[in-house]
Amino acid sequence: MIRTGFQNIQESYLFSEIGARVRAFQAAHPEREIVRMGIGDVTRPLPKAVTAAMEKASREMGDAATFRGYGDEQGYAFLREAVAGYYADKGVRVDPDEIFISDGAKSDLGNVLDLFSDDCTVLIPNPTYPVYVDTNVMAGRKILFYEGSGENGFTPLPDESVHADIIYICSPNNPTGAVYTREALERWVAYANREGAVILFDAAYEAFVRDPALPSSILGIPGARTCAIEVCSLSKTAGFTGTRCGYTVVPQELTRDGCSLRRLWLRRQTTKFNGVSYIVQRGAEAVFTPEGLRESRENIAYYLENAAIFGAALKKAGFSFVGGENSPYLWTKCPEGYKSWEFFDWLLSERGIVGTPGAGFGTAGEGWFRFTAFADRKSILRAAELLGK
Amino acid sequence: MIRTGFQNIQESYLFSEIGARVRAFQAAHPEREIVRMGIGDVTRPLPKAVTAAMEKASREMGDAATFRGYGDEQGYAFLREAVAGYYADKGVRVDPDEIFISDGAKSDLGNVLDLFSDDCTVLIPNPTYPVYVDTNVMAGRKILFYEGSGENGFTPLPDESVHADIIYICSPNNPTGAVYTREALERWVAYANREGAVILFDAAYEAFVRDPALPSSILGIPGARTCAIEVCSLSKTAGFTGTRCGYTVVPQELTRDGCSLRRLWLRRQTTKFNGVSYIVQRGAEAVFTPEGLRESRENIAYYLENAAIFGAALKKAGFSFVGGENSPYLWTKCPEGYKSWEFFDWLLSERGIVGTPGAGFGTAGEGWFRFTAFADRKSILRAAELLGK
Repeated sequence: MIRTGFQNIQESYLFSEIGARVRAFQAAHPEREIVRMGIGDVTRPLPKAVTAAMEKASREMGDAATFRGYGDEQGYAFLREAVAGYYADKGVRVDPDEIFISDGAKSDLGNVLDLFSDDCTVLIPNPTYPVYVDTNVMAGRKILFYEGSGENGFTPLPDESVHADIIYICSPNNPTGAVYTREALERWVAYANREGAVILFDAAYEAFVRDPALPSSILGIPGARTCAIEVCSLSKTAGFTGTRCGYTVVPQELTRDGCSLRRLWLRRQTTKFNGVSYIVQRGAEAVFTPEGLRESRENIAYYLENAAIFGAALKKAGFSFVGGENSPYLWTKCPEGYKSWEFFDWLLSERGIVGTPGAGFGTAGEGWFRFTAFADRKSILRAAELLGK
Repeated sequence: MIRTGFQNIQESYLFSEIGARVRAFQAAHPEREIVRMGIGDVTRPLPKAVTAAMEKASREMGDAATFRGYGDEQGYAFLREAVAGYYADKGVRVDPDEIFISDGAKSDLGNVLDLFSDDCTVLIPNPTYPVYVDTNVMAGRKILFYEGSGENGFTPLPDESVHADIIYICSPNNPTGAVYTREALERWVAYANREGAVILFDAAYEAFVRDPALPSSILGIPGARTCAIEVCSLSKTAGFTGTRCGYTVVPQELTRDGCSLRRLWLRRQTTKFNGVSYIVQRGAEAVFTPEGLRESRENIAYYLENAAIFGAALKKAGFSFVGGENSPYLWTKCPEGYKSWEFFDWLLSERGIVGTPGAGFGTAGEGWFRFTAFADRKSILRAAELLGK
């Protein structure tokens, strides 16, 4: 009666284990200072343009003349058009009808799997955002990994001898902060089109791409419209982790087994979803106004400056790392002879800094360590100082 | 590659067909007045307590001192406790840890199926809210129906000779407006416990139950905690159709195949969901304050008064119907010899009233017709007048 995949799924202990170790350390050393760089959650408040739009929308909902009931499951046209405009500004053509507004990337990444049969083979990066693995374990799918490493800069290319039906790509990557080049994405797109695979492209960190040579969307890559679904979120772009809004783009040209995936996703969403709050959609719309974009970009610049400060401290202390330039994550090589949990314990007890052990993101993360730049400047400066002790 | 159920699913044409017929009529008779009683969407604005709470929460999100990032996927404790208090006021014991806040009943009713294997047999009322059928067609499950009729007042009881794994019950019912008695729900609970089935109890219209003898939750029925999941929404309770918030209760005692369903649902939600907007949760919390409850109940009373007015007009015109007393729906028997779409056309052309043909909700809806009381008073009075012509 219970789906086998759900009977098999393991609990995720990564962040609870981190919490437990930090609490134990604090109990033993109540006088010690601790700086937290472990969780990938934003700390800067929402842009004023966004909160003003949500206040206004809240008032509208209290007035019979402006009240709104059910909206389109796919999202209001005003927001889909704003997202299409955001893509156009990047030079990427996306039709508003290909855009689906949702409560966030995590929901869409899980729910889009509804469309695919359970006997699909799934190709997932290692290390990885654990949700890619867990959602497919729940469905009982066969999972293959493609391996990141220091040698390939954690931007591995496809192994042409392997067949997959569904391919996850996250760029800028969580947890490694690595960003694929245009040429590398062209390789992935060619591979996916040849295999008939669908790429689920997680663009949650797209707003951190500052290097104009690096792609912040797969949809600008020739051929992507016949093989890629792009999932994005305002969580990191505009501080929406607690406000909840994202969007998924399913190109018109994407078909499999004679079915339009855009039509299937529309059918899924109209049947199992009722759209995002009008108030939140008005807030999201404000993100894409000149004022909202300016404020959002200031916040991103703040986090990137954090990353630069801590990155400089890491280098000075002799560490090597990936990311931190077009990403909020600094994926750091543990000192020789340290496994990631050993380094976690050392860093906590000797430096008072909390990060995330790379092994928590997959076997290829062993010996690596994730620091996040989502913190206030004072904490980052203090962490840089503590690291240099 | 594409899930077979998704290849098989038909488009839903009910409301688009209604729209097309209304537009065609208007084009042919631009001078004719039309009163709409077809869509089950609220029309009254949100309670002031709710909009004030959302305005305040929006401002909090713009201030670093009160900003909130990721919340618990299950929902904030303040809201889960408020919902538990709402149940306590009905005399039903529910622990806040059993409550999961979501963006609405439609999402939860679809997503909860993730937990169950695709070879489960599903038992669905006929007529029915189409989402119960479509979500299971997508998964390829075997579907059985239990038949409502004028004879059983559209509150059919279980056929003890039939086995099912998953049972849908909606009370007060959409589309029929019929409400199960306590004794009838006891029969369903006994049947589910004996068969090892799980009841998905859709309580979206619970706030319309005004008769204290009628149950507005299955969780107050002895034995329900070992067989029932209750899915509810603020859409109809407090006008949240466009604001999006609901909750699902999974009792601690509910286990199948040795698994706690509460734990599995928690695992599903932490993996494929990231919680509801903080702003919306503050609005939802305000629904359960004395002021919010008072305003919400005034709105419900308004819709029930609409139903009473139109119900009186139906009776006067010689129609018989179910519902309309503890429900916003009046499920009306079509005149002798009329099928539901024929009655739709007659009512539109001869009276200028739009409703929903019962056949759109399943074969057992043929010969019946749904009117909704979600409208402003002026429209309802006008519809009552037009009907009596």
